[in-house]
Amino acid sequence: MKTYLDCIPCFFKQALFAARTATDDERKTKEVLDRVARLIPLLPLDSSPPETARLIYRAVREVTGVFDPFRIYKQRSIEKALSLYEELKSMVESSKDPLQTAVTLAIAGNVIDPGANPDFDIEEELKGIMIGTIPLNEYEFFRQSLKKAQTVLYLGDNAGETVFDRILIETIGKKTVYAVRDIPVINDATIEDAQKSGIGKVARILSSGCDAPGTILERCSREFLEIFDGAEIIVSKGQGNFESLSGQWERPVFFLLKVKCPVIASHLGVKIGDMILGDGRL
Amino acid sequence: MKTYLDCIPCFFKQALFAARTATDDERKTKEVLDRVARLIPLLPLDSSPPETARLIYRAVREVTGVFDPFRIYKQRSIEKALSLYEELKSMVESSKDPLQTAVTLAIAGNVIDPGANPDFDIEEELKGIMIGTIPLNEYEFFRQSLKKAQTVLYLGDNAGETVFDRILIETIGKKTVYAVRDIPVINDATIEDAQKSGIGKVARILSSGCDAPGTILERCSREFLEIFDGAEIIVSKGQGNFESLSGQWERPVFFLLKVKCPVIASHLGVKIGDMILGDGRL
Repeated sequence: MKTYLDCIPCFFKQALFAARTATDDERKTKEVLDRVARLIPLLPLDSSPPETARLIYRAVREVTGVFDPFRIYKQRSIEKALSLYEELKSMVESSKDPLQTAVTLAIAGNVIDPGANPDFDIEEELKGIMIGTIPLNEYEFFRQSLKKAQTVLYLGDNAGETVFDRILIETIGKKTVYAVRDIPVINDATIEDAQKSGIGKVARILSSGCDAPGTILERCSREFLEIFDGAEIIVSKGQGNFESLSGQWERPVFFLLKVKCPVIASHLGVKIGDMILGDGRL
Repeated sequence: MKTYLDCIPCFFKQALFAARTATDDERKTKEVLDRVARLIPLLPLDSSPPETARLIYRAVREVTGVFDPFRIYKQRSIEKALSLYEELKSMVESSKDPLQTAVTLAIAGNVIDPGANPDFDIEEELKGIMIGTIPLNEYEFFRQSLKKAQTVLYLGDNAGETVFDRILIETIGKKTVYAVRDIPVINDATIEDAQKSGIGKVARILSSGCDAPGTILERCSREFLEIFDGAEIIVSKGQGNFESLSGQWERPVFFLLKVKCPVIASHLGVKIGDMILGDGRL
């Protein structure tokens, strides 16, 4: 997905939020905003938003000296999600269609996102999901595609959401590679976060090699790209992965995300809050 | 009021909205955003937000070549407000305290603001106002101060709101100078807009000399400053005038505004949507 001009005010909003999470020093926060401002005239609009977000979060790291501003937030999100694990697991197992329930939960788990929505309430979200709809519903195609595949490449998104992903991976029951960001960026899951969420018990955890809040193929490691190129099915979670991978017609990718911003809602022709399960044509 | 870092994302949002109102050419809109971006590193935070807004709307004019992008919006706002004039006037005249009703209506009229709130609904607003509260209620002090004054300096804000101002000016019944922006900026009233609203019948209309969406004294004309400095009472409408004049302890200024942004809400310790009547101590 290209960068829309509407993304530009939001880049500043995100930079402000991340910088203030990292530091109380308003001069440093201003310096982060100044760096972001200097990027704007150079911004190629055909690059995806995570390309710019990558530079924003680098600016936050460099100016504040804080490598992982959302560390505590991520830790809390994982603990909260782990505390729900047994309940969610039995919700899936006792349901009529465990795969569909696990998919729905995994999309609902995508609400954990301080950048887009700092005040998420996962329990409130869970109460709502079963009456939620999946407007771009490729569930049946997804189910059939999964059935044929022996292996799954799963692209993680936020820490905490990882626990919801784990349940979906367990429900799918195939050999899985779970790809995460190379370094901390916003609250996106890293290897450490995936391990804390118990993903290591159900999948091989791998860094994508990418330091952006998305999966920008040009910035991924050769190891990841070999798996990506040979994958039988790719489960891509969240907005950042969608923004950087949308239009991948040639790859068997399914996007599972909760729509949290007006630009993506308008791009997809859906509403904010909608849960999306779509294939590479998205 | 100083510029808060939270104003920076909003500057881009405003620039985007104004540029798109002026042109369909996304390249020109991007050029406006680029110009705003180049301002940010140079931005002195002790300047008030209208100082920066002034440069933003100048960039919109220069890049798009459109001198008054909100012309049609202003025209519609004035017509809509004029169509309510008789009803509002009789609401004031039949009320127990006509001045208080006229003040409340004048503050409610401040909702006409496409920058802060493009989807305003003045009739919806009017339905709500009589149950609205004025949290920083200096009404009694305002009433007493008005009583002592022979003349009033009234600082207008948005076109359309001008009709509400006219009713307040008629209700006050003193000799009044009504100050407006020197050139079109957002939907702020100019001399032409004030005339169309019938202000000319009840007050002397004067340009402040300032081309910002506020009253930045350093940028006002000598003629305006002489009136400002000698004023017995100053009625200042809206956020922009508040942002540029707040802390004017030494002048008998009263701020009448509807709080439309989180930064001002937090600065004043009130909620968005609150109606404010406060004096120079604000």
